[in-house]
Amino acid sequence: MPIITIKLAKGRTREQKQQFVEMVTQEAVKTLNVKKEWVTVIFEEYERDNWATSGQLHSIKLGDGFGQ
Amino acid sequence: MPIITIKLAKGRTREQKQQFVEMVTQEAVKTLNVKKEWVTVIFEEYERDNWATSGQLHSIKLGDGFGQ
Amino acid sequence: MPIITIKLAKGRTREQKQQFVEMVTQEAVKTLNVKKEWVTVIFEEYERDNWATSGQLHSIKLGDGFGQ
Amino acid sequence: MPIITIKLAKGRTREQKQQFVEMVTQEAVKTLNVKKEWVTVIFEEYERDNWATSGQLHSIKLGDGFGQ
Amino acid sequence: MPIITIKLAKGRTREQKQQFVEMVTQEAVKTLNVKKEWVTVIFEEYERDNWATSGQLHSIKLGDGFGQ
Amino acid sequence: MPIITIKLAKGRTREQKQQFVEMVTQEAVKTLNVKKEWVTVIFEEYERDNWATSGQLHSIKLGDGFGQ
Repeated sequence: MPIITIKLAKGRTREQKQQFVEMVTQEAVKTLNVKKEWVTVIFEEYERDNWATSGQLHSIKLGDGFGQ
Repeated sequence: MPIITIKLAKGRTREQKQQFVEMVTQEAVKTLNVKKEWVTVIFEEYERDNWATSGQLHSIKLGDGFGQ
Repeated sequence: MPIITIKLAKGRTREQKQQFVEMVTQEAVKTLNVKKEWVTVIFEEYERDNWATSGQLHSIKLGDGFGQ
Repeated sequence: MPIITIKLAKGRTREQKQQFVEMVTQEAVKTLNVKKEWVTVIFEEYERDNWATSGQLHSIKLGDGFGQ
Repeated sequence: MPIITIKLAKGRTREQKQQFVEMVTQEAVKTLNVKKEWVTVIFEEYERDNWATSGQLHSIKLGDGFGQ
Repeated sequence: MPIITIKLAKGRTREQKQQFVEMVTQEAVKTLNVKKEWVTVIFEEYERDNWATSGQLHSIKLGDGFGQ
């Protein structure tokens, strides 16, 4: 415990993921009172063809790519 | 809220997914009393090598492909 | 296949859930080309203390309750 | 996008959760290049009777409670 | 790795869960070539009001209870 | 019910998966008192770039590959 899963669009770099992992793990240790070695972080990446909000696939609404 | 996730075999077209998204979003708004912009729909696609029922992988039981 | 999971706030009635299940199952059969007996629908219900958007727990942002 | 889910033992306070949500949301905006209003954070809490590592339920291994 | 999650109806005893955890962990070590201490097993329990197959909630189809 | 999901590193063979599925399904029938045809087993495979423990991505900590 804990297991932290991030579902997001495909495309982040290893560096972005590693930085996010470091910060989220530190925060879990500090705020949720757990040991660093207990924390698992998992990224689950999606094509925009597999993600929809307000009734529309993001591939149609936003075209390809990810983020802002 | 709500987040609706569909786990299914790989292979549907964008059109099939978009049609399903529209209907499921409408139904959530009507039946579950939520706003359209609150609804997220996610497709998680699987190879038949990663899905088993009754103790057998679908790749062995059904061969390749998806659906009926 | 498919397994359809709905994550939403606690509070819907059995009737609302049954109506949603019927419609979503019908839609899956029609649009995703699967058999009715293949479709599993799961509701995962959350307290507003366990759901946050834009950096704020819904229990703080919206108080108790669910839906519109 | 993104949806961040934290699976952990039951027991954290609203304040702990809110603090963790704020930090994780800020970090997602900064590192993963997304907008604050796109970020959803979900807590999924477990009894120690429903969590096992190294072949043993935590309720047997650790007794009741959570964290360090 | 690996994380093994079992979604099932509420009602099993601690003994049933512990026995299942032991066997599944052993099997993962033997067949998937992992170390015992890497294996996490999680039970996610559901009321029959939150689970449906073939378009019908199990609470309506089967009444209360679980298993065979 | 039950749905058993295994999240693990990419790389196991069809034979390894089929053997694991057979044993886990048998164990579920015996210990959790369910019918064989009720049991669904799903494999969710991850690159080491998408999995981190103790604040570090496994791709950085362990390089490529999987298992012991």
